[in-house]
Amino acid sequence: MAPVTNGRVLFNAIPEGFPVPGETTVYDTSETIDIETVALNGGFVLKTLELSVDPYMRGRMREPSKKSYSDPFFIGKPLNGYGVGVVIRSENAEVQVGDHLYGILEHQHYSIRKDLSGLEKIQNPDKLPWSAYIGVLGMPGKTAYMAWKEYSHAKKGEVAFVSTGAGPVGSLVIQLAKRDGLKVIASAGSDEKVKFMKEIGADVAFNYKTTKTAEVLEKEGPIDIFWDNVGGETLDAALEAANNYGRFIECGMISGYNNGHSTGIKNLFHVVAKSLTISGFIIFRLEAKYREEFYKVLPPLVASGEIKYSEDVYNGLDKVGDVILAVQKGTNKAKAVVHVADE
Amino acid sequence: MAPVTNGRVLFNAIPEGFPVPGETTVYDTSETIDIETVALNGGFVLKTLELSVDPYMRGRMREPSKKSYSDPFFIGKPLNGYGVGVVIRSENAEVQVGDHLYGILEHQHYSIRKDLSGLEKIQNPDKLPWSAYIGVLGMPGKTAYMAWKEYSHAKKGEVAFVSTGAGPVGSLVIQLAKRDGLKVIASAGSDEKVKFMKEIGADVAFNYKTTKTAEVLEKEGPIDIFWDNVGGETLDAALEAANNYGRFIECGMISGYNNGHSTGIKNLFHVVAKSLTISGFIIFRLEAKYREEFYKVLPPLVASGEIKYSEDVYNGLDKVGDVILAVQKGTNKAKAVVHVADE
Repeated sequence: MAPVTNGRVLFNAIPEGFPVPGETTVYDTSETIDIETVALNGGFVLKTLELSVDPYMRGRMREPSKKSYSDPFFIGKPLNGYGVGVVIRSENAEVQVGDHLYGILEHQHYSIRKDLSGLEKIQNPDKLPWSAYIGVLGMPGKTAYMAWKEYSHAKKGEVAFVSTGAGPVGSLVIQLAKRDGLKVIASAGSDEKVKFMKEIGADVAFNYKTTKTAEVLEKEGPIDIFWDNVGGETLDAALEAANNYGRFIECGMISGYNNGHSTGIKNLFHVVAKSLTISGFIIFRLEAKYREEFYKVLPPLVASGEIKYSEDVYNGLDKVGDVILAVQKGTNKAKAVVHVADE
Repeated sequence: MAPVTNGRVLFNAIPEGFPVPGETTVYDTSETIDIETVALNGGFVLKTLELSVDPYMRGRMREPSKKSYSDPFFIGKPLNGYGVGVVIRSENAEVQVGDHLYGILEHQHYSIRKDLSGLEKIQNPDKLPWSAYIGVLGMPGKTAYMAWKEYSHAKKGEVAFVSTGAGPVGSLVIQLAKRDGLKVIASAGSDEKVKFMKEIGADVAFNYKTTKTAEVLEKEGPIDIFWDNVGGETLDAALEAANNYGRFIECGMISGYNNGHSTGIKNLFHVVAKSLTISGFIIFRLEAKYREEFYKVLPPLVASGEIKYSEDVYNGLDKVGDVILAVQKGTNKAKAVVHVADE
């Protein structure tokens, strides 16, 4: 087999505000790979099938000297992130051709890996689409499931407010909250997303671009639980509408990712006045406690359709830069998936 | 016995910024009481000995229609707050002349009470000054002890930062943190307070008016626990200096009490990035869990001098308005106590 192009998405410049496709990231086709002859040194060739694009990736586009919970990207190197690949050649006895692996993948068509570090085999007995394993059954799904279990202290009849409720995390949170018997208020940035949130069970769903969050919460609250993906004004509105002893689960603050968090939070004094608890978390820390339960409980619910999910699939590795921007701006319709290749 | 003046501190006007003695509160001497003949209807006469003035009282000086965790004061009525009184006449079989009672007292020399509602008898076997029961052994002491037990998750060798560390709450927190084996950084607003904080064990004590909090924390941190009494810029500095998995105990945000919390908190995104937990609390909610332990553990430690406390005593009920202002401005030297009368 002749060498083929090994397309890569390279980190090219640190964005100042929003990332700019073609500038902050570039799609590069200068490398080739001969899959049958390339030296593996005991490793294996992983062919990338599906890549996940998530909000937290903006935080990795920074000066490497700045510390954060996630590793930085490096200028001139490929991006990397959650993905699913299939093994197409192997010299490693633990890894067979045809194995499907989930974990952190380089943003390139083919990668040579030494071993299973950072990867795990997917069994997929329910024959779900592989993309499900980077969404509802991947990091976003784990984020929703594990943090809801750990921090919500949900009680039947309480009220939850879920921001970015049409996303892969928020949409699972809505469904978990409904299964726990809560009233769910959910917000997103388009009417199409509002429709989806109602389909998956939100009692009150609204478009925050056309309806004021504070007004909805005043009418439908007070809220006992706030699932925060956005921060900023939405967080201020939730603080104002919080019930005594409310729980705020801080999953993300995307509203500040591209403007340096210049909006100060003015209503934080409600934390004292209303005895609120605000929990930030990193999902890795909850994995050990909930991993087994997650993979036992969730795939069958997804397979049976009891838990629904939605994807916005973009075809081709060259689309990654556009998808990163779409996710930061919220113009993607649902969980952003880049379909890199068929098997 | 002839009637005597029953001096009262009346709430007179809702302050816009800082309270103004003589305007927002007035000392009134228009009432008299004849202690021996006044009708008790089965109740008793309580003579006020000591009154506590605390930061939270500013929040009670509001439009009664505004909801909050504390009851509002009412225009034309006496203030009320924690205090200690002695029973000087009684028709209630549960209450004997000479009993000392702790609880919410009207800000007046003599009160007629029906029963023990809102009050409890103090035994005081260690013969501590009665004022201790509105400070280190009263609400401030309970606040420090119970919330530290509940929320700090302190581990030996960790670093705690305590704001308003010379106050009745902060100074006990410093000592509890040292007893748990932590390194303690403490701030206050005068060199005299800094000296006191060092005396009670703070490893690093500084005057936030002359030394930048952010610089101290950068040098001495990162911090695992922040005991927040102030909010505002101090909270922002603590968020910046927080260690991963840091715990923020939100006891108060006095920096915003007199300016409508106009300073927005800019560094809240660290809650996500560093997996912080921020706990607001109301002490009443922890009472049931820790009350018995508190009264068993703390009085002997205070009596033996192992736990130290400091008071700034003002003599005379007519001083209450001035003391409220001093506490809001932080010009009091230590726990503010109004000594109303000797026994």
